[in-house]
Amino acid sequence: MFTTRSPEWLEDLAERRRRVQSALAAQSADGLLIAHPVNLLYLTGRVYCGWLYLPAVGEARSFVRRPNTLEGPGIFQVRKPEQIPEILQAEGVPLPKRVLLEAQDLTHWDWLRLAALFPEAETEDGSSLLRGCRAVKSPGELAVMRLTGSRQAALIDQFASVYEPGMTDQAWMTEIFGLMMRAGSLGHLRVSGSTMEPFIGCILVGENGAEPSPYDYALGGSGLSPALPVGQSGVRLEAGMSALVDVPGNFFGYLTDCSRTFSIGTLPPRALEAHQLSIEIEQAIAEAGRPGTPCVALYEMALEMAARAGFADCFMGTRQQAQFVGHGTGLVINEWPVLGARSRHRLEAGMCVALEPKFVIEGVGPVGVEDTFVVTPEGMRNITPCDPA
Amino acid sequence: MFTTRSPEWLEDLAERRRRVQSALAAQSADGLLIAHPVNLLYLTGRVYCGWLYLPAVGEARSFVRRPNTLEGPGIFQVRKPEQIPEILQAEGVPLPKRVLLEAQDLTHWDWLRLAALFPEAETEDGSSLLRGCRAVKSPGELAVMRLTGSRQAALIDQFASVYEPGMTDQAWMTEIFGLMMRAGSLGHLRVSGSTMEPFIGCILVGENGAEPSPYDYALGGSGLSPALPVGQSGVRLEAGMSALVDVPGNFFGYLTDCSRTFSIGTLPPRALEAHQLSIEIEQAIAEAGRPGTPCVALYEMALEMAARAGFADCFMGTRQQAQFVGHGTGLVINEWPVLGARSRHRLEAGMCVALEPKFVIEGVGPVGVEDTFVVTPEGMRNITPCDPA
Repeated sequence: MFTTRSPEWLEDLAERRRRVQSALAAQSADGLLIAHPVNLLYLTGRVYCGWLYLPAVGEARSFVRRPNTLEGPGIFQVRKPEQIPEILQAEGVPLPKRVLLEAQDLTHWDWLRLAALFPEAETEDGSSLLRGCRAVKSPGELAVMRLTGSRQAALIDQFASVYEPGMTDQAWMTEIFGLMMRAGSLGHLRVSGSTMEPFIGCILVGENGAEPSPYDYALGGSGLSPALPVGQSGVRLEAGMSALVDVPGNFFGYLTDCSRTFSIGTLPPRALEAHQLSIEIEQAIAEAGRPGTPCVALYEMALEMAARAGFADCFMGTRQQAQFVGHGTGLVINEWPVLGARSRHRLEAGMCVALEPKFVIEGVGPVGVEDTFVVTPEGMRNITPCDPA
Repeated sequence: MFTTRSPEWLEDLAERRRRVQSALAAQSADGLLIAHPVNLLYLTGRVYCGWLYLPAVGEARSFVRRPNTLEGPGIFQVRKPEQIPEILQAEGVPLPKRVLLEAQDLTHWDWLRLAALFPEAETEDGSSLLRGCRAVKSPGELAVMRLTGSRQAALIDQFASVYEPGMTDQAWMTEIFGLMMRAGSLGHLRVSGSTMEPFIGCILVGENGAEPSPYDYALGGSGLSPALPVGQSGVRLEAGMSALVDVPGNFFGYLTDCSRTFSIGTLPPRALEAHQLSIEIEQAIAEAGRPGTPCVALYEMALEMAARAGFADCFMGTRQQAQFVGHGTGLVINEWPVLGARSRHRLEAGMCVALEPKFVIEGVGPVGVEDTFVVTPEGMRNITPCDPA
């Protein structure tokens, strides 16, 4: 809808809107009113402050508060959402009798205000519908994901080159984040859910790998402050410690997720064994995963492999164990599907899934790998291949 | 409530809770149930995943989902919020008849779930009450703000030392952010409001200073991508351009805000004049501001000074002009009060306010200063003094 992109990208965006419209029709909804930056980005190709109204049939309309310079067909500058119904009517768009709003993304106040725009209409949640659509990438999105993955993988190969003996985890992270920024990283990861907070990635070293955090990431870390209790603790890297580096790639607004383990000096055999097991679990899931595969089955397979090898008690943490082994990724780092204990998702072609079987070895630290895969009819394809060892 | 802090800090936290309790009593509310990370941090001294119930009279109780290692008096590990009423009753805490929830922070879904915990109770918004309390800092918070401001100011004095001729704005930002991280920056700024997104600060150079963004920051910038349209555009710094660097200090979870302008080579007189005017407006506001001063009067004074000097059309932007000249800061970068066109706030002793009169000069770029001030009975005191020129 905005003219900053190529004809191919504009057609890709139109195809995404058509897919959302099919989902609306399937739910007997007349339209969807969106306000969240992630969903605006998904359906228009850019973030703006305002709203998008997508009817089940017909063209979308954008209502823009900021920036005040956006213009084009279907774009209306407004001061407040109360102007929307009048503009729709002037455009000949029938007001909805059943409208979806982002119940899981809007604040309660914003929900009340938007719901009041259509006093005659039933309101239902649209967040789940949008997450479901976002989980299966369009051809254009897959191209961006592949480019992001390959750029991230190339950078991971350089992480060891900016390490210096005696560094703290934070000092190394500073250098790594510098590499990412010089390569065009946009800076932080978007994440869904009111109990999650975005950050720029993390390095977990030694005992800090076992520190539980408030956030639902694979592992935690105490962070530098109780004000942001996740990631680096400021610990110095010393011989015999493992370091797990998990810094997502984010160069165009789409996130790929890839972690690698580094050893300071030599690690004991149990740590190497767990690391090898992590690689094997990732491979086993990637080989088993096909369109239609229940995600819970893949999680259970991982659990079973960890247990069979005697690593159940340190799989995905020790004191607090994450209940998943993989997750969708894209515009947010925790897109659907979840490969977890209570997941009802099945894999579909076009999903992008990060697999991250990780272990925390007492007296050593966290070990494991993570890669982002695209689900294809023929199986799962790794889009973050790298081997920094 | 958590045992990671000094007795002084714990008493400071208790005093904040007592202040919120007074505000609850003034609104005839029986209690407040909190879920948002910023408000949990404000009242308990750390972020956790869970809830805090604060009755108008009596002790607060924390209900923690993650991390599962938190323990102590008044702390209960729970799996879901539905366990809260039963625990309160077992503790002898009466269930509220009128309860405040964070209507402006909770998603609509979370609101419905939490409101259902007290089916007999009236529910009202608690977000405004909490923002009002957070605006006036406790003695402990003021100490953290002062320390943050002085650390940030010392770093700004080093920004020029990591600049190299021929750099892009993003390359310079990479070096500056490295300085910040090495000094212990936690990485990103928290921001209130569903139409805002956190980022790490920005450098605006040349024409990019006039680019409107979707976000309600003082100035915008196009960003590196329509996926995050704010800040650096990737432009190369060239002679005759101004660069406005705005990277908040964030070392303990509290944010101070300070911007400085750098010139590449020599700037034309009109740019220098606007820069000097920015300094004068900041000083004039700081001298006029006292407890009780209406914030709108300070904004109008700034507008008037800009207009009188012939700079009205480039004050706070050109194509899109921000409607404020200052804002509270603390746990989020946009705390109350707002020094803006429609503000109903008055200054109070203990508020921390960033003043940022800025101009965008055609053919040159953005110029101006920003400092964070504490409001005292005797006037406003700058806590980010620096002079990197």
